[in-house]
Amino acid sequence: MTIKTHYKKELKTKKGANYSVAHAGPFEDLHQFEVEHPRLKRNVPKFFLKDELGLTGMQVSLNRMPAGAAVPFYHKHKQNEELYIFIKGKGQMQIDGDIIEVSEGTSIRISPNGERTWRNTGDEDLYCICIQAKENSLSQETFEDGVPVERQVTWP
Amino acid sequence: MTIKTHYKKELKTKKGANYSVAHAGPFEDLHQFEVEHPRLKRNVPKFFLKDELGLTGMQVSLNRMPAGAAVPFYHKHKQNEELYIFIKGKGQMQIDGDIIEVSEGTSIRISPNGERTWRNTGDEDLYCICIQAKENSLSQETFEDGVPVERQVTWP
Repeated sequence: MTIKTHYKKELKTKKGANYSVAHAGPFEDLHQFEVEHPRLKRNVPKFFLKDELGLTGMQVSLNRMPAGAAVPFYHKHKQNEELYIFIKGKGQMQIDGDIIEVSEGTSIRISPNGERTWRNTGDEDLYCICIQAKENSLSQETFEDGVPVERQVTWP
Repeated sequence: MTIKTHYKKELKTKKGANYSVAHAGPFEDLHQFEVEHPRLKRNVPKFFLKDELGLTGMQVSLNRMPAGAAVPFYHKHKQNEELYIFIKGKGQMQIDGDIIEVSEGTSIRISPNGERTWRNTGDEDLYCICIQAKENSLSQETFEDGVPVERQVTWP
């Protein structure tokens, strides 16, 4: 399913052979990036990175939720693990009926079967990065997967 | 390889059947979470989420780089795609010799073979979230993988 986007602000991008870049700008502008939500039948503020950057191992969304707002449904997943990282603001995540207070620096892993929703309980915007990756798909990471490049770092 | 951690601050955690939570607190405290770096042979400030949360599809690090600091080496990867999301501060990413200016809202995908390093060029701390997932591992995402739960949302 293609994600249909509606951007009210220019997205600056750049590409190289082994990379791609998107400059969405300050998080307070995130509401200017909207997608059509097939369940809600309306546009919702959400900036998805996968199609913009050509990601192949994860989907990622950058989210800004205004004070007083809440996701109006529960959802779970078929294959994908989700990770929510809260950047700024105060809120609550509800998973299988449990309530978790969230604020700057709160990270939450949710298995596909967890029934989840979240809301802003503060007086300011709540900012969150949500990452999806296929459960059990990571074979190795960080110090096993990283390869040192034996060349002195220089900056032009 | 086990990642050896040295925390100077208590990490608050919580677990349920389908989720796990880590409250690292404000990003300005991130330097209190260190790991032993096998290449540099010293501790570096980095907070890895995989082991703390039991992630199975991704590794994620939360990073705070002080003004004037830089990663002292290039590295690439064997299997994993990397995504850097910059949260605050000013800096530069160098990939295959190209320079990319980074600031709040800049996202960069790097293929395994991209030779990368980054530095803080601003007067304040530079904050970045780095995510690793296996290249080409995502089968479906978001609206295909999400399953609506047909139950009215209630908050206690």
